[in-house]
Amino acid sequence: MKPIVAVNYKAYYPYSFGEHALEIARAAKRVWEETGVTVILAPPATELSRVLSVVKDTGVKVYGQHADPLEPGAHTGYLPLEAFREAGAHGVILNHSEHRLRLADINWLIKKAKRHGLETLVCADVPETGAAIAVLKPDMVAVEPPELIGTGIPVSKAKPEVITNSVELIRRVNKDVLILTGAGISSGEDVYAAIKLGTIGVLVASAIVKAENPYNVIKDMAEKALEAL
Amino acid sequence: MKPIVAVNYKAYYPYSFGEHALEIARAAKRVWEETGVTVILAPPATELSRVLSVVKDTGVKVYGQHADPLEPGAHTGYLPLEAFREAGAHGVILNHSEHRLRLADINWLIKKAKRHGLETLVCADVPETGAAIAVLKPDMVAVEPPELIGTGIPVSKAKPEVITNSVELIRRVNKDVLILTGAGISSGEDVYAAIKLGTIGVLVASAIVKAENPYNVIKDMAEKALEAL
Amino acid sequence: MKPIVAVNYKAYYPYSFGEHALEIARAAKRVWEETGVTVILAPPATELSRVLSVVKDTGVKVYGQHADPLEPGAHTGYLPLEAFREAGAHGVILNHSEHRLRLADINWLIKKAKRHGLETLVCADVPETGAAIAVLKPDMVAVEPPELIGTGIPVSKAKPEVITNSVELIRRVNKDVLILTGAGISSGEDVYAAIKLGTIGVLVASAIVKAENPYNVIKDMAEKALEAL
Amino acid sequence: MKPIVAVNYKAYYPYSFGEHALEIARAAKRVWEETGVTVILAPPATELSRVLSVVKDTGVKVYGQHADPLEPGAHTGYLPLEAFREAGAHGVILNHSEHRLRLADINWLIKKAKRHGLETLVCADVPETGAAIAVLKPDMVAVEPPELIGTGIPVSKAKPEVITNSVELIRRVNKDVLILTGAGISSGEDVYAAIKLGTIGVLVASAIVKAENPYNVIKDMAEKALEAL
Repeated sequence: MKPIVAVNYKAYYPYSFGEHALEIARAAKRVWEETGVTVILAPPATELSRVLSVVKDTGVKVYGQHADPLEPGAHTGYLPLEAFREAGAHGVILNHSEHRLRLADINWLIKKAKRHGLETLVCADVPETGAAIAVLKPDMVAVEPPELIGTGIPVSKAKPEVITNSVELIRRVNKDVLILTGAGISSGEDVYAAIKLGTIGVLVASAIVKAENPYNVIKDMAEKALEAL
Repeated sequence: MKPIVAVNYKAYYPYSFGEHALEIARAAKRVWEETGVTVILAPPATELSRVLSVVKDTGVKVYGQHADPLEPGAHTGYLPLEAFREAGAHGVILNHSEHRLRLADINWLIKKAKRHGLETLVCADVPETGAAIAVLKPDMVAVEPPELIGTGIPVSKAKPEVITNSVELIRRVNKDVLILTGAGISSGEDVYAAIKLGTIGVLVASAIVKAENPYNVIKDMAEKALEAL
Repeated sequence: MKPIVAVNYKAYYPYSFGEHALEIARAAKRVWEETGVTVILAPPATELSRVLSVVKDTGVKVYGQHADPLEPGAHTGYLPLEAFREAGAHGVILNHSEHRLRLADINWLIKKAKRHGLETLVCADVPETGAAIAVLKPDMVAVEPPELIGTGIPVSKAKPEVITNSVELIRRVNKDVLILTGAGISSGEDVYAAIKLGTIGVLVASAIVKAENPYNVIKDMAEKALEAL
Repeated sequence: MKPIVAVNYKAYYPYSFGEHALEIARAAKRVWEETGVTVILAPPATELSRVLSVVKDTGVKVYGQHADPLEPGAHTGYLPLEAFREAGAHGVILNHSEHRLRLADINWLIKKAKRHGLETLVCADVPETGAAIAVLKPDMVAVEPPELIGTGIPVSKAKPEVITNSVELIRRVNKDVLILTGAGISSGEDVYAAIKLGTIGVLVASAIVKAENPYNVIKDMAEKALEAL
């Protein structure tokens, strides 16, 4: 089992867009080449095809940050799962704390993504909602306490019990789902702790996206992740 | 003053995505070269950069279908105006009947787009809301009766009074805004009628996006538009 | 264990409002007096206090149809749980298919309702989301296939496997939650079938709210429910 | 023309609910009896019928804080205009900054309220959106800069130009609509200034709702309003 470092670009200006978006993609590609760790990149939809061009034919995966819970058709300004599949994406993040979905829609999107060959990384705010999501059988569930997101205070240090409780509650209802954590993850050390507490990897945003040198941060995280597993 | 043919790709599968999205862009480019008519293309966000590559250095403009009313930052899965500007877009459609915005947000987005050099094409459902929008000074306002959208029954034939009332009410409060119409527009003949009733052009979706030969439809509309003006 | 007949008034005009709203309440009171079956009434918020006056000091319970997931404060036009508690309500319906909630909000509302002494009846569209909700420990979970709601085609006849699957999946993760079903339930016979398939009762709307004689329908359902248990 | 003091109860706990909600209503009734000033009360929906009982057969009006933009029917937990009319309300507040509506829905609700004999008080955040709303012909438009709401810093003192600009822009497009202002209004002095700047009254929340003695505050505002007119 390989560890996972998932990078949520969010919508930081200027970091998540344009040339910097591609620089993060090149960094991810290099780390994958050097370590084999699975890096998932989730750029803004407007950057998706350019980021995909950079990592083509590598093990780096590209996800949408969100998909709208509707069938394709007359839906101006919405992006159904088909939009991501047609662009060549490998999967989607769903239900991020900044873009919560209704429960019925989470279930609908997980099932439909599976039929379309797209992977799903579904976020939860607390261990109990993580377990509720695990019942719906996504590929990955990431538990992130919203109050720590963007703080630089890693969940693995501030609230390790969130991680251990998540693993315990989720495993009661689902043996297979990959468990990630996130919120405040800033360094390889935080990733190491997160994996030691029972997860397979992390969901990271500003620590990589706003980094002066994204390669250094991703590399550090990937190496420590390998050590921990 | 040049007539305008604005193409809303919406999210039709497979038409709005992939190779077909680019074919529409090539058709628009050719029509612009042949007629000089302003064609605006509004592809899904995931297709934006590829469509822009096709029409680079031409008079064809590329718009977002919608922009989210928020500043850039930690907003997973949302696209602020900066996302479109960084991708190279010329403007955005706002408040389409399939993606209505709150009034305060329409005003905020129009003002901010202006500061960022992005054009705004704002939709309305009836003449009165068209006039309300015109008070906010967007570049273009498009009045589209939602009950005719996608029907193939052109507003210019079924409800010509919607267009004439729109022009009258809008001109009372704004002398400069470009007035478009839409809903059911399928042919050059419909465009001709729309312009004769006082608009500068049309907003079209399925008639072009799902056409077997998008070039033929755009060309017909552009030629009739020039005749009418 | 007593069977449950929960009546969702919805917003039918004129049935859910005014004098007819009170007539339904009087009917529920009479059925409770005659049978002891637990009847839950969920009137529109504007009718809540009048319906409560009718059933005061009886076993009939009054619920809100929905609660907004926010703390009390400067929230014009929203109804936090406190609004229902202060009005004297016994609980709230949450996540009805016509008013879906985000997963994190469902969890937050269930926990907060418990602290405030309010009961929760949480709806789900399919057995799997019913199980996801059961993980969050509400008092009741009601599985209602949206495609049957309002049709008069009872879920117990058209899709009995929805009920049996719901019971099976929910019991794997929660031994205590009361399981209801709904959608198309029109008669005592439908209630009988629903209970025989493993539930403790039903969530009903138009069959009672739009009935010429609500008493007759509630009474029939209550009697057949007692027979089935 | 009589001045207007509109009281938005919002959802303050415990102030907006229960006995305190009725105390505010009794205070409003007494001020109306003593001054003839029009007082509008907008309690939470769950308190509407009890507040109406208190002010029955007086000049005090009772409004909903918001109405949902839909026809009555199978809409669990939503309140269409019919809910307020059936409860006996005189009108509704629409588009408060804490409950913004889509432009098309504001227009639809204003038109429908007129047909149903309900008055409309529609909020705007800035003078320009106030003018946009005035195009739609509500009974009243209230311009409230959101950044001052709840601060106790009165718009009439901090941003008098917001009021004078509002009056100017609104009067260009609508000669008849009643113009109110709000945000930070705390005393009779603030009301006096607001009317001298060209409005007919104010929309007030916490200064009255959370007051130790609501009667004193409403009375002070009513008296100064009469002086100013």
